[in-house]
Amino acid sequence: MPYALKVKPGTKVKLSDFPTDETGGLDKDAARRLLRPMKDQIRDLQGLLYAASQNSVLIVLQGMDTSGKDGTVSSVLESVNPLGCRVWPFKTPTPLELSHDFLWRVHNKVPEKGMMTVFNRSHYEDVLIARVKDLVPRSVWSKRYNQINEFEELLTESGTIILKFFLHISKNEQKERLMKREEEPLKAWKLSAGDWLERQYWRQYQTAYEAALTKCSTKAAPWYVIPADHKWYRDLAVAQRIVDTLEPYQSKWLDSLDELGKNQLAEIELLREHERSADALEAVPTNKVSSKS
Amino acid sequence: MPYALKVKPGTKVKLSDFPTDETGGLDKDAARRLLRPMKDQIRDLQGLLYAASQNSVLIVLQGMDTSGKDGTVSSVLESVNPLGCRVWPFKTPTPLELSHDFLWRVHNKVPEKGMMTVFNRSHYEDVLIARVKDLVPRSVWSKRYNQINEFEELLTESGTIILKFFLHISKNEQKERLMKREEEPLKAWKLSAGDWLERQYWRQYQTAYEAALTKCSTKAAPWYVIPADHKWYRDLAVAQRIVDTLEPYQSKWLDSLDELGKNQLAEIELLREHERSADALEAVPTNKVSSKS
Repeated sequence: MPYALKVKPGTKVKLSDFPTDETGGLDKDAARRLLRPMKDQIRDLQGLLYAASQNSVLIVLQGMDTSGKDGTVSSVLESVNPLGCRVWPFKTPTPLELSHDFLWRVHNKVPEKGMMTVFNRSHYEDVLIARVKDLVPRSVWSKRYNQINEFEELLTESGTIILKFFLHISKNEQKERLMKREEEPLKAWKLSAGDWLERQYWRQYQTAYEAALTKCSTKAAPWYVIPADHKWYRDLAVAQRIVDTLEPYQSKWLDSLDELGKNQLAEIELLREHERSADALEAVPTNKVSSKS
Repeated sequence: MPYALKVKPGTKVKLSDFPTDETGGLDKDAARRLLRPMKDQIRDLQGLLYAASQNSVLIVLQGMDTSGKDGTVSSVLESVNPLGCRVWPFKTPTPLELSHDFLWRVHNKVPEKGMMTVFNRSHYEDVLIARVKDLVPRSVWSKRYNQINEFEELLTESGTIILKFFLHISKNEQKERLMKREEEPLKAWKLSAGDWLERQYWRQYQTAYEAALTKCSTKAAPWYVIPADHKWYRDLAVAQRIVDTLEPYQSKWLDSLDELGKNQLAEIELLREHERSADALEAVPTNKVSSKS
């Protein structure tokens, strides 16, 4: 049973239909026990992804302030090898970024083959805050849904596996989290008066999210709605979707790793042949393995 | 007792004086036991670095093929939060990179405040392979030592903490590792006939490394020679140097985190005052904490 709901392409999303406080009948301890082996699976799959270098993975994290975008990375991707994983936060665009089309800065950060990349906020901000705050006219942002779909299609057709997670919290849960930050001196650095001001636009943001989830959940790059009031459930739901999405690639990646290895060995054998026939200084010592063949 | 030797600025390095197979009187199990709490310390220090955003950390890894650059990252930085750590490999420069000065591509990847960045190979390749293979004339590469020192000085004066590790293995250990890769199907993808060919320049590379370590170990950006024949000793030596270098910053980072938090709280309080006096819609609920004051 999947812990996170996939937005079926073509269906109209109403966020109030999606629970924020789902527990799946689990409690925190049970969820953490289920998460542990998933983290290891993600680490192993990411190791294979990296070595095989056939595909890349792009994980998009979106959600209201305090919905747990940072926390999801820290927890779910705790075990991945830093060699093969990069996280990019997207904040207020710089003047240089604004002087380009809205996909320019994100395109620059998409993962190359072998890499897993997480976008902490993303090009979706350009149909969220940009729409809610009228940063650009409707005639501009309304075209962006289609532009996003075509951009993501380019990526998936080029071997990128895309997963998009909307971390869905209730307005009340956000209030509690903001309050809590004020009480914990070591969390206060994350506070911003702006968070309280943004909160006044809650309804407008939900509407903007509904439009983005409705228009931009595609077969190749689906949106998942993650019940995120409980951090332990959120982590489990995200982890499970990552594992389920990457597992089907495992055998393909193992095969290409195998082939890569064979090619390298053949190339070395060729070099050995060449050295022997040229009676050259033996740069490449005969290996036990290859001398058997 | 430090496990890795620091190259004292101004001393002439002779690599044969540095052991490759040092064990420090430890065995693998003992070393792994010592490493465990260091990994946790590195994770905690990196978390503080990230939150405080006062400094950045640049770790440069250099060494002959198979010396364990990837392995060091996988092991020593296993626990760091992917939010705050990026690893950049530097391979054969692209035509675009070559059309710029040699520091252009690395400057582009240095860590911003709060981040820890690892260079897997680096600008030092431009005084290593570039010198050994005559990729540029002596008149060009000979100027680079000074250019590197000035570049690294710019970074350290701007708040970047630099650690440079030379992973020192013996020529024999390299041969064994290359042979081993041929025998392990899942490691063969890392093989390259080029590794065997490069090996013929071992002595020239050692000389080039000696020059780089001699000319570019500075007080602000020191080189450490890591005995790397034993992977477990290598990891321990690198981890210890990272902890020892970052620990002195801990209280400064905690202080600035504290101040950051206080500023944010003050800003929110100001907003609350404003709302009360303007009799406005209460966007910012009074918190228990602030109402006490």
